[in-house]
Amino acid sequence: MTKLATLAFACTTALLATPAFAQFSKPEDAIKYRQSALYVMQQNFSRVVAMANGKIPFDAKLAADSAATAEFVAKLPWVAFAEGTDKGRDNRAKAEIWTDKAKFNEYADKLQAELSKFNTAAKTGSLDAIKPTIAGVGNTCKSCHDAFRKE
Amino acid sequence: MTKLATLAFACTTALLATPAFAQFSKPEDAIKYRQSALYVMQQNFSRVVAMANGKIPFDAKLAADSAATAEFVAKLPWVAFAEGTDKGRDNRAKAEIWTDKAKFNEYADKLQAELSKFNTAAKTGSLDAIKPTIAGVGNTCKSCHDAFRKE
Repeated sequence: MTKLATLAFACTTALLATPAFAQFSKPEDAIKYRQSALYVMQQNFSRVVAMANGKIPFDAKLAADSAATAEFVAKLPWVAFAEGTDKGRDNRAKAEIWTDKAKFNEYADKLQAELSKFNTAAKTGSLDAIKPTIAGVGNTCKSCHDAFRKE
Repeated sequence: MTKLATLAFACTTALLATPAFAQFSKPEDAIKYRQSALYVMQQNFSRVVAMANGKIPFDAKLAADSAATAEFVAKLPWVAFAEGTDKGRDNRAKAEIWTDKAKFNEYADKLQAELSKFNTAAKTGSLDAIKPTIAGVGNTCKSCHDAFRKE
């Protein structure tokens, strides 16, 4: 083989070996992944909200751990909204995720920024520090769901 | 109310307000949580295994990110195997999780230790450093599934 042909073959092989849906081998894996990460995030965030609302007792250590987990896990779902992952498993993603990707990414970034503030507040161990950071997270969830999630 | 009665009332209220299933309000939430965390972990671990097996191209940055995520998320599922969370949502947890809790916890700890080695190796950016750490993780997954997960 010529050098060029070898290179072309290597590139093609690499392309074929690369998963088609970002880091996921099948659309259903990507859908399940983003749903899983968002669920873990939601559970951790909601636990601290329940403390702030007085529904469960405030536990500073648990709140800090939960907020740290919510912030970490909030980095994960977005790559799994790859092109071609609208179908393959039950999900509520609207087509606008892919037709208005810039807006969707803006919400994803804003959520991570708000969760970072929330986590920083939770590290102080003070519920009074946490409380004012909750609405920023919650409103971002809601705005994104209103725009990009089916009923 | 006497001081003692007030204290007793406060304690009872706190107990009632505490979620019954560790940090989760319902058994189905705990089951979904542990399944979600384990799925995110599995996807990240498997991605690096696919690189090690030559099924997808090695990407040092993606491998390091995936390993870091796998290690972080591996801390999460265990609290969700609370007493009373054997039912409420489809799941494959065997009763032995609760009757042989010490053994189960041993596997959970071992998995986290193995993933820590795996993550440390992935940070080096060398696939040759990663490869020898894979079996430790994979074998721990398998041993725990054999003992504690239904077919």
